[in-house]
Parts: sequence; C-alpha cells; structure tokens
Amino acid sequence: MPIVHITRRERFSAAHKLSRPDWSAEKNTATFGKCSNPNWHGHNYELWVTVKGEPSPETGFVIDLSALGQALHEHVVRQLDHKNIDLDVPFMKGRLSSTENLAVAIWEQIKVPIEALGCVLHCVKVQETENNHVEYFG
Amino acid sequence: MPIVHITRRERFSAAHKLSRPDWSAEKNTATFGKCSNPNWHGHNYELWVTVKGEPSPETGFVIDLSALGQALHEHVVRQLDHKNIDLDVPFMKGRLSSTENLAVAIWEQIKVPIEALGCVLHCVKVQETENNHVEYFG
Amino acid sequence: MPIVHITRRERFSAAHKLSRPDWSAEKNTATFGKCSNPNWHGHNYELWVTVKGEPSPETGFVIDLSALGQALHEHVVRQLDHKNIDLDVPFMKGRLSSTENLAVAIWEQIKVPIEALGCVLHCVKVQETENNHVEYFG
Amino acid sequence: MPIVHITRRERFSAAHKLSRPDWSAEKNTATFGKCSNPNWHGHNYELWVTVKGEPSPETGFVIDLSALGQALHEHVVRQLDHKNIDLDVPFMKGRLSSTENLAVAIWEQIKVPIEALGCVLHCVKVQETENNHVEYFG
Amino acid sequence: MPIVHITRRERFSAAHKLSRPDWSAEKNTATFGKCSNPNWHGHNYELWVTVKGEPSPETGFVIDLSALGQALHEHVVRQLDHKNIDLDVPFMKGRLSSTENLAVAIWEQIKVPIEALGCVLHCVKVQETENNHVEYFG
Amino acid sequence: MPIVHITRRERFSAAHKLSRPDWSAEKNTATFGKCSNPNWHGHNYELWVTVKGEPSPETGFVIDLSALGQALHEHVVRQLDHKNIDLDVPFMKGRLSSTENLAVAIWEQIKVPIEALGCVLHCVKVQETENNHVEYFG
Repeated sequence: MPIVHITRRERFSAAHKLSRPDWSAEKNTATFGKCSNPNWHGHNYELWVTVKGEPSPETGFVIDLSALGQALHEHVVRQLDHKNIDLDVPFMKGRLSSTENLAVAIWEQIKVPIEALGCVLHCVKVQETENNHVEYFG
Repeated sequence: MPIVHITRRERFSAAHKLSRPDWSAEKNTATFGKCSNPNWHGHNYELWVTVKGEPSPETGFVIDLSALGQALHEHVVRQLDHKNIDLDVPFMKGRLSSTENLAVAIWEQIKVPIEALGCVLHCVKVQETENNHVEYFG
Repeated sequence: MPIVHITRRERFSAAHKLSRPDWSAEKNTATFGKCSNPNWHGHNYELWVTVKGEPSPETGFVIDLSALGQALHEHVVRQLDHKNIDLDVPFMKGRLSSTENLAVAIWEQIKVPIEALGCVLHCVKVQETENNHVEYFG
Repeated sequence: MPIVHITRRERFSAAHKLSRPDWSAEKNTATFGKCSNPNWHGHNYELWVTVKGEPSPETGFVIDLSALGQALHEHVVRQLDHKNIDLDVPFMKGRLSSTENLAVAIWEQIKVPIEALGCVLHCVKVQETENNHVEYFG
Repeated sequence: MPIVHITRRERFSAAHKLSRPDWSAEKNTATFGKCSNPNWHGHNYELWVTVKGEPSPETGFVIDLSALGQALHEHVVRQLDHKNIDLDVPFMKGRLSSTENLAVAIWEQIKVPIEALGCVLHCVKVQETENNHVEYFG
Repeated sequence: MPIVHITRRERFSAAHKLSRPDWSAEKNTATFGKCSNPNWHGHNYELWVTVKGEPSPETGFVIDLSALGQALHEHVVRQLDHKNIDLDVPFMKGRLSSTENLAVAIWEQIKVPIEALGCVLHCVKVQETENNHVEYFG
C-alpha cells in the first residue's frame, strides 16, 4: 500500500520577543539584536503540518483534512493567534520563543491528537518571515 | 559523483467531486462535506515532479527539462487540464479523485517515461489549494 | 478627511465551462477552446473587494473587516464555493461564466450590502489563474 | 513626456493592538475582536510606495530606487521594524494603529522626503495579512 | 454597458545592464551602482498587460485572452525572453534598459496590435524583482 | 535533544548562458535551446540554505541567522548578485552554469563556513524560475 504525505497550512499572527530576563539588556541586544525589543514585535506566522499514512480505500484520504484543521485550531492556532507568545501561551511557558523552540513545542502539542486521528505526524514547519523557516521531524 | 534533485512545476485546472455512487447523498455529505457537491467544483492544481540523478559532465543537466516538460504534458497535463477528473481522465477511472489518489496515479503515469529519460523519479507533489498539498515518494 | 481604500481577499473553488447551448460543439470549441470542455473544468478563484471611505475617528476603520467578510460570504462565497457556476449559482443564471461576467455579477450582488455597511464599493477583482484576472469598477 | 509610476516594496515586523484606553475591555472586545488582545499581537507588514514622474533622459529613472529605499528606511522602516507600533513609534502617537491610520501616517512621513527626491508621491499601500491591505492616495 | 479591465501576465528572463557608453566607468558606477556591472546581470521579468472594454454579449469576453497572449508573444516576449535587452532587442535600441523605459517601449510595441483586437490598452506593468515594479498608463 | 532544520532564503540577480565553447553553435542550440543565446540572458535566482542542529538551551537558536546571512553574503551572494555567472564568478570557473552545477558549487563554497558556525549543512536549494528548482544534499 502506498504511503502518502499530506500537508495542511494554518496561519497565526502573534507578538513575541527574544530576551532573557536573567541577562542584561546589553547581552540581550548583543545576542538577539532587534528581536529583543522590550516592547515586543510580531509576525504573520505560517504553519505547515505534514502527516503520513495510507490513503483509505473507502475515501481516498490519509486523514480527514477538516478534522486535522480542527485539531490544529484547538491545540495550536487558537492559543497562538492574536496572542503574545511569551505571555499568553501556556505551552510556551519557560521557553524562549525562537522559531526552533516554537516548532518543537507545536510538535509536542499535536503529536497525540494527530495519532488519535489514525495518522503519523511527519513534520512541523513554521515560517516566521518570507526569508526564514524551520522544520522539525520529531 | 553528486546526486542532485531537480523539480519542475506544471499546472492544470480541472473539475472533480468526492462522492461514492454506492453511498447515499447523506453519507457522501457527511464524509466529504462540500467536496461532494453533485454538480462538481474545481481547482487550479499545481504539480511539482522531482527527479534525481548525477548532472551530466557534458551538459550539467540531471535531465533535459524540456524533455521532462514534454513527458509531463503528454502523460499528465494534457489529460487533466480543463477536464473533469472523474469523467474525462482514463488513468483516474475507478479511483476517487482525492489529492492523495491523484498523486499516486500521476506517479504511476510518469514513472516509466521518466526512467526512459535516464532519471529516477523521486517525488510527485500535488497542491489543490494554497492550504493543502500532498507528496508521494513511491 | 482622508479617503482610504481597503481590500479584502476571499477565495472559492468552483467548476464552470464556457459553452453556448445555441452554438454547435465546433463553434464552441473554435471560440472558447479548452474552456468549452463539456464535462466542465474548474479553478481556485481569488476575489479582492475594495471599498473606500474615511477612517472612523473612533475606530480607525473604514469598514469593519469582519462585517465585510460576512457580507461577502453570505452574498458571494457561500454561493460559489465548491459549486458549479453554471448550474448552482442563481445570480449567474443566464450569463456565460467568463471572468468578466463573474466580476460584474459579484459587483451587483454586493453593492447594496456594502453600502449598508456605510462604505462605497470601489472595485471587484477576480483572479481565475495566476496568469489572468479581471477588475470591475462599476 | 511619459509619466511612469514606480513602486518599491519594504517590509517590517511589528507588534500592535487595537484597543482604546477610554473604553471598557468589553467594548474593546466587541469592537476590535481578537485584535484587542491586551498583551499585543503582531504582523509581517508589507509596504508598497508608488511615486510617479517622467523618466530622466539621462538615466531612464523616475527616481533613484536606492535613494527611495534609504528615505523609506530612515522615515518609516527603521521606526517600525521590530517595534511596537503603539508604544515605540513617535509618528503613531495618539493614533489607533489600524492599517488605515498606519497608511495615512506613513504618507505624512514620506511626502516631503519623496518630493525632495524630485518625485510625486502617488500611493502608500500597506498589507497586514495576505487577506487584507489598504491604499492611500493622499 | 459595463467597462471591464482584464490583465494577462507573461514572463521573460533576460540580461541587461545600466551603463552609458558616453560616461566613465566611475560615473556609471556612481549612478547605476551594481546594475552597471560590465558583464551584465539579469532578471526574471514579469509583465502584466491590462486592456479594457465592454464584455461581448456573445462570449462574455472583453478580449480573446489567447489572441492577446499571441500578440504579446509575437511583439514582446519572443523578442525579450532569453535575450540581452541591450544587444538583442530592436525596440530597445538606443534606450537605457531601465524598467521605466522598458515599460514605455512595451506599450509602444503593443498599442496598435491590441487596438487591432478591438480593445483599449490601459496599463503595462513590468516587475523586475519582487521589490520593485513599474506601471505605464500611456 | 531535538534536531531542528532551519532555512534562510537569499536572492541574487545574475546573467548566464548555457553554451560550450568546444561545440558548434548548432550543437549548443540543439542541446541548450534558448538558454544558449550568445549574448546571455538572466534570472532572479532564489537560494535556500538549510542547516540542522540542536537548538541552544541558552538562545533557542540552531544557528545565529544573521551570522548565517553574513556567511552566505560573503561566500555566495556578493559574488553572484548583479554578476555574470560565466565570466565574473571565480567559483564557477570551468563549470557550465546549469542550476544543478550552481547548487553543487554553492554547497562547496559554504560547507566549511557553516561548519565553522557550529552547524551541519543539510541542503542547498536554488530556484531559477517559478517553474524549476534544484536541491543538493551533499
């Protein structure tokens, strides 16, 4: 049976900053540059979640995309969209909001719900700007 | 010798629906949602075909892209573009036109012609909308 | 007071064909080419609706974008998305589904609802493929 | 002599919220929805500035694009990029950071510097997300 | 009768430089920067041609898009694609290949052929990179 | 510890041609088509460089993206942007400027500088036009 990868895109707009409270302002600026602006900045993030599996002989689907979309909204997008990643998002508590850390945290949020839909999670891709993105394969 | 992947994009606009004739209208709607609209709907599909191989020392090419384009037109695009996937496309007969099934069927259509061009087929990617796409690696 | 234009994008996926029942198949093909395929084809249409007005001193808004979005969904997108433009859409009855005619018909659908939101409708833009789009200014 | 319009794109990532301090939290939420999140959210804004004039017979240029870029950086992008529009940006003080108000304020910032480069400012376009943008023509 | 604008996109990849033979290398560099590189550089240009008119009651078309496409290929794209704008393109002889001059020259090339198709030429838009484009309205 | 892939995009505009001096004009045309135009043509190339590693517990970064950007500018972009790949670029001397060869050469240019930044180079992707791109994984 063929294994097919299917990817769904979601989007969220959020504020964040890169800044460690245990560091001086100088060290934060030296390390994180303009991303450490004390009053935050923000992005239109794009999220691509790729799952894999065999297409069902009955439906031709690896996964019901609207069920996948609902799971992503409940576990990820609803919590991040129009929020401050550093202040408002429980699953990012205690983590610096680098795109790398965000992708890993999203993976952890959705792995179980996606398996509950009968699929294997393959990749979480997060794009912060048109010039940089991150992929995590677990 | 280095192995390089090269990808060509093609596009086709087609009608389809997701609906099983052996199911009731209710079951089709419950399963396939608005994709089961009896009078069809359609998409601007994008197709990326990735092949791999060693660049020729003579030409620098893994594959002659215009030969690849011609093969894709003959075996895929000409049959799908401005057609109804469910009614007009011989290689989709008897298959539900999910994006997953479409990617697998396109792989089957082009594997031999691409090998005849001296290359290995690596991936067929089909994008149905800007929010979802499928990849098949054989 | 400044006049500002604001534009909202919506998307819909629909089937259609260009074919006159009062013409022979030959004349339809000669005139409309592959767009006349009897079993339909389809597109991911993109719709941009531009309205203009003065930003409210209270809210900074020319129009409440979510109210605009709801109006577009009710009067346009809900009727076109995952439908057959030629068979399923009351406001296209008796009109050939060229992109030009579609833009004019969408204008007629939304002019009054947008004026009811206190704005002036400026432009309806419909994109059929990445290579062609239409604009109607009333 | 022909009049030509030329447009340069710039980008900035910023945090903001839509919320009036003289309104209750309930009224802010009712009016501005999720855009009123107290801890801010943010966007990757895209800015297109269009100027017009006659191409110089000597250079073929309506304007030196790098001089235009420098003016935009000095008067707009440097002040907005990786900033909080509501807290960090002097030219937005006392204005709600709707995209409409932002476009008008950017116009005011750059009109004189662009005229100093020998051109006429034609349009400021600000895109907040892929689904909405604003244009201001003065 | 409604007037509708319709736009077709074409693409061409070409080499060029901005450099006046009657100027010193120093003056060319000071004026045109890296665009004056003696051995040329190049771009993937995008061309959008907008025409306007009344949709035909018979076809719903302002213009036959394939006829428009053929005219653009014959008069513009065939002459520019995979060419050196400064050396290979008769209609650019004696003109600096700024995007501004290119848009004006394309307008002159296509005005008569488009009028021969029964339409009014409205705008020629040429994009040189994702960060800059030019529009000419005649 | 999780391994994360991070990708940075850079762009360069360059001229080139595909043509072997040891072949006749006829053989070059037969093999390389319009890409063999003697006076060159050009593209807006897009470059995506993917590196992988563990995010630092201190910063959340796999790599400092501005350091990566500087390395790419010094070793790749500065040498290619607004240049003729066949005449001006030392690291392409003696190689046909196919996209395949370009991706392999860029890999060779940046492997050591990227390792010096404490990362593993994973992929070099070069896009020549919106319809074709190449990936090299070493």
